[in-house]
Amino acid sequence: MEYKLLDGKAESAAIRAEIRQEVEQILKNGGRRPSLTAILVGDNPASKTYVANKEKACADAGFTSEVKRLSAETTEEELLQIIRNINADSGIDGLIVQLPLPKHIDENKVIATIVPEKDVDGFHPVSAGKMMLGQDTFLPATPMGIMTLLERNRIETKGKSCVVLGRSNIVGRPMANLLSRKGYPGDCTVTMCHSRTKDIAKYTREADIIVAAIGIPFFVKEDMVKEGAVIIDVGINSIEDPTRKSGYRLVGDVDFERVAPKCSYITPVPGGVGPMTIASLLQNTLKAYKNRK
Amino acid sequence: MEYKLLDGKAESAAIRAEIRQEVEQILKNGGRRPSLTAILVGDNPASKTYVANKEKACADAGFTSEVKRLSAETTEEELLQIIRNINADSGIDGLIVQLPLPKHIDENKVIATIVPEKDVDGFHPVSAGKMMLGQDTFLPATPMGIMTLLERNRIETKGKSCVVLGRSNIVGRPMANLLSRKGYPGDCTVTMCHSRTKDIAKYTREADIIVAAIGIPFFVKEDMVKEGAVIIDVGINSIEDPTRKSGYRLVGDVDFERVAPKCSYITPVPGGVGPMTIASLLQNTLKAYKNRK
Repeated sequence: MEYKLLDGKAESAAIRAEIRQEVEQILKNGGRRPSLTAILVGDNPASKTYVANKEKACADAGFTSEVKRLSAETTEEELLQIIRNINADSGIDGLIVQLPLPKHIDENKVIATIVPEKDVDGFHPVSAGKMMLGQDTFLPATPMGIMTLLERNRIETKGKSCVVLGRSNIVGRPMANLLSRKGYPGDCTVTMCHSRTKDIAKYTREADIIVAAIGIPFFVKEDMVKEGAVIIDVGINSIEDPTRKSGYRLVGDVDFERVAPKCSYITPVPGGVGPMTIASLLQNTLKAYKNRK
Repeated sequence: MEYKLLDGKAESAAIRAEIRQEVEQILKNGGRRPSLTAILVGDNPASKTYVANKEKACADAGFTSEVKRLSAETTEEELLQIIRNINADSGIDGLIVQLPLPKHIDENKVIATIVPEKDVDGFHPVSAGKMMLGQDTFLPATPMGIMTLLERNRIETKGKSCVVLGRSNIVGRPMANLLSRKGYPGDCTVTMCHSRTKDIAKYTREADIIVAAIGIPFFVKEDMVKEGAVIIDVGINSIEDPTRKSGYRLVGDVDFERVAPKCSYITPVPGGVGPMTIASLLQNTLKAYKNRK
């Protein structure tokens, strides 16, 4: 089967260009720039990279952005006070706290302290609740990016059988809720599989759409996939590769080489779901900006 | 197969007796009674019955309760102001607004105005969000009652294949989220089916547990059910029955007579899920009371 690649890199670039144009129009009309603040606590190298990428994407889009870099020894109360100050700052539209946080800080408490109006990561209980209830809100970046990817590629979802692998709060669970809700993209019959599922292949073999977010390299194999399936690979796994200078490469949760020929659509890793998440963050920040006007 | 009836009426009575004993103990220790306020807008006969049943259950449990009966012409702003006053009233632990509301009132706005600490119906976005995220919160009465029924009957759920029929915000969707989460009862592989699902029987025939909340009398037939399945029937459908004085009788979404012999466990209608919902409301109100101490 000739499969079509769901090119997240290109879609993300297109969305970011649209946002940049919209910001230019806002500025022409005398408006101010949308503004995002990120809080980074400690020295986690991956977190530093993520935050730097977000900063760059904001700059490219014409947003104002600021990163508050805090020591790993910051107390919970200090962090909460900084969040309260940003909540009250009328010049800031969106606020994200890069996870994970040092162990002495309660992440749930931190996230719950962000005002829902600025929760552009969509991690606040109010955001999660509105999403579950089908109300308008900020969606978490990865599931939102996947919905956008399906929509912009006009992939049919109504009545489709969909299997989500993984039940995390930031990918699997919101994904299952979004794909099963009324409207487009949505109206799927969704099965959420996880570590306790017996015989995952039994479910995936029947699926029209598979969203793999299970964090195991090459987990989805050729014989687990139906001919013509749509595959969304959320995995970003680092595996050893002596042929690379770095000594490693990034692979997804899907055995792409062997699975792709059976698919109608499939996302590559890298360049599939990953780039969509930053586009979603920018879309949410622009939405927060507009909501406040 | 010899099936076991999941007797919601008996379980509910047992829970309510436990709560009554706990309240007596609280009073002995000099504490005040837990307190629930219900708001009823307009003259919907079913709503009046539901509220009256809740009032009676509160009285039986030793709770203080009050029903605010408002005219169908009450404006949205009047209702919101009444809610704000109850929010601020330190003598009231739980607040419920009986749905549906008259059409000129925005239900989402009304529910969002209740402080989450008193949202004992579990309908507030914060409650729904915390439930989705696996945090401690008030669960909506029907799904909570079903979880309790499974737990008190020690029905195994881990790794079981579960099909939820219906995707409503008050039953199907929370049910799917709860049964798929970590722990007991939970760890099921859940498929949520709905009006857009193609060939629902294909899913139900493979299910170890079926939760039917689709609102169609006798929808689940004998040939849709696997031998030994656990069946939870949430349906309460009124059908004509000339042999009854009233001219009608209540039936579930399951063709009980023919399906029951194939089951390991099944809930009757009436007397299954229905009575559990009031027990859940009392449990939530007691929880709200304890949280405030």
